[in-house]
Amino acid sequence: MNIGLIGYGGVGKAFIRLLKEKDIPCKVKYILKSDGAVFNSKGIDINKIIQSEDNIKEHKDWMEGKNFENIIDEEIDFLVELTPTNMETGEPAISYIKEALNRGISVVTGNKGPILIDYLGLKELAEKNNVSLGIGCTTGGALPSISGGAVDCAGARIEEIQGVLNGTTNYILKEMATKEIEYQEALRQAQGLGIAETNPKMDVEGFDTAIKMIILTNVLMGEKLTLEDAEIEGITKVTVKDIKDAEQEGKKIKLLGKAFAKDGNIKVKVAPVALEEEHPLYSVEGKNKGVYYRTDTLGDITIIGGASSTRNAAAAILRDIENIRIMRL
Amino acid sequence: MNIGLIGYGGVGKAFIRLLKEKDIPCKVKYILKSDGAVFNSKGIDINKIIQSEDNIKEHKDWMEGKNFENIIDEEIDFLVELTPTNMETGEPAISYIKEALNRGISVVTGNKGPILIDYLGLKELAEKNNVSLGIGCTTGGALPSISGGAVDCAGARIEEIQGVLNGTTNYILKEMATKEIEYQEALRQAQGLGIAETNPKMDVEGFDTAIKMIILTNVLMGEKLTLEDAEIEGITKVTVKDIKDAEQEGKKIKLLGKAFAKDGNIKVKVAPVALEEEHPLYSVEGKNKGVYYRTDTLGDITIIGGASSTRNAAAAILRDIENIRIMRL
Repeated sequence: MNIGLIGYGGVGKAFIRLLKEKDIPCKVKYILKSDGAVFNSKGIDINKIIQSEDNIKEHKDWMEGKNFENIIDEEIDFLVELTPTNMETGEPAISYIKEALNRGISVVTGNKGPILIDYLGLKELAEKNNVSLGIGCTTGGALPSISGGAVDCAGARIEEIQGVLNGTTNYILKEMATKEIEYQEALRQAQGLGIAETNPKMDVEGFDTAIKMIILTNVLMGEKLTLEDAEIEGITKVTVKDIKDAEQEGKKIKLLGKAFAKDGNIKVKVAPVALEEEHPLYSVEGKNKGVYYRTDTLGDITIIGGASSTRNAAAAILRDIENIRIMRL
Repeated sequence: MNIGLIGYGGVGKAFIRLLKEKDIPCKVKYILKSDGAVFNSKGIDINKIIQSEDNIKEHKDWMEGKNFENIIDEEIDFLVELTPTNMETGEPAISYIKEALNRGISVVTGNKGPILIDYLGLKELAEKNNVSLGIGCTTGGALPSISGGAVDCAGARIEEIQGVLNGTTNYILKEMATKEIEYQEALRQAQGLGIAETNPKMDVEGFDTAIKMIILTNVLMGEKLTLEDAEIEGITKVTVKDIKDAEQEGKKIKLLGKAFAKDGNIKVKVAPVALEEEHPLYSVEGKNKGVYYRTDTLGDITIIGGASSTRNAAAAILRDIENIRIMRL
């Protein structure tokens, strides 16, 4: 199995380490960054990569200026696509993914942008070229939300999806509840711990949850929704009083994504909701995540868990590779 | 897609109805019972079967005395095996499944006996013949415990399994708690409602849970355990006082199956356990089921749900068929 990796941030680094830790029988032919690549047609020595992680340009196989156009000719079975996300255009990832699929290379991505913008187009292209597109990492990382909906619910129709899909907001809400601190203070502490980003808008205003819900809805319910179709409210207006009032009634406030039928159409809505103890996602705490599928013939199926580090996200990439590989044997 | 069905009890009947309800593009070539078969090489009219469900022998294609040996020559893609379970020998199901696999027919079964007794042998035979063996229905029906462990956790190592896998005992324990009635009375009421069987031993003494745990352990952790390897305690000695004492501490008693490493070996243990609110299976109530996987790289993954009727079990059979079919395209 020959792998090419494009994008080398936290998840990319964790992915290379995971290949070594698990002793996966494969060759990594290249690691492509914006200004060059480590490239070796016979396979890079990944031990050396791991040892010199932050000095990748000193690796003997580093080729300054090497770019996608002149590396994609190399024969590989999987392109692992982990470039920075663009939620407006999906580029340049969409172009990279298309080029790979057209060359008969399966692609596994952790990048929400291209899947939000053009899932159907990419999926069709994969089918046309008889290869696979793995997107499990895009909707909750290690949480198996895509395989949970596609494989665990196969043969049934998913009629409703609910998700607590954003670890950052879940963590902030939990901290507000246990420490009785208001949103701004909880956010500041989460930023201090590296749990919330410096620009937290994507998470706290609900966009990250909405994007994941749109992807799940398009992939699992066959819809063609865009982010504009979602009704989105974040957690920025939630107060400690709201949380305490909910607790009085035995409820917990979570940032909940829902995809449900209304007037014959599927609607996606994201908002803070007080869940009662009987709700299947009530127990999704802290950095944890969860997804719930209501089906016509298999009953309700709830999946909770899948931890949130770069290592766990890398394991979600490896999961897609393994599933694609096994199915093709 | 051509299907043969062997065994025509509750799940078999629900399966035929599901094929019609979902308008699955397939031909059912035969429905084989112990004393004959409805058989038509061009496909049985399943509407007629459903209409005359309890008078299947009056169907125009009924052939008295037709048996497995002289029907298995018929070309089909899937044998759906739903014959009565034998937990000691796995027969006659093992012979039926082997014969089908040897003829290049994929098999989907809801029968725990053959999978408990000879999973590895059957799996090897399927691989040798380049066909598939679907067993998802054997470990919790609609609960996607097999696909949850195999697909959702692919690429990771499952280090521990926990399961609340028996709806009957879960229901009895819930009734004991809410109605404050002792075990014998709760059992009697559950029998009256058809939830517990007349001979409830398999469920209440923990054998059903143990069998499912052994299957999960062998399939997902690569073990070769038999039922004799499991330490099994049922719910027959649980009292209302035990349940109330647990509630005082914020806990709920469930019949819990565990597969875990001890002294370098994997042990399977089934017993009533008081679970605290933080336990991932704490919320598995009534006829519901749940399974928990602790993995090395994907974190903890918990799957809850999958309803328990014959229709839901039939949907689990259809799920395996769909997954096998799609993967082979």
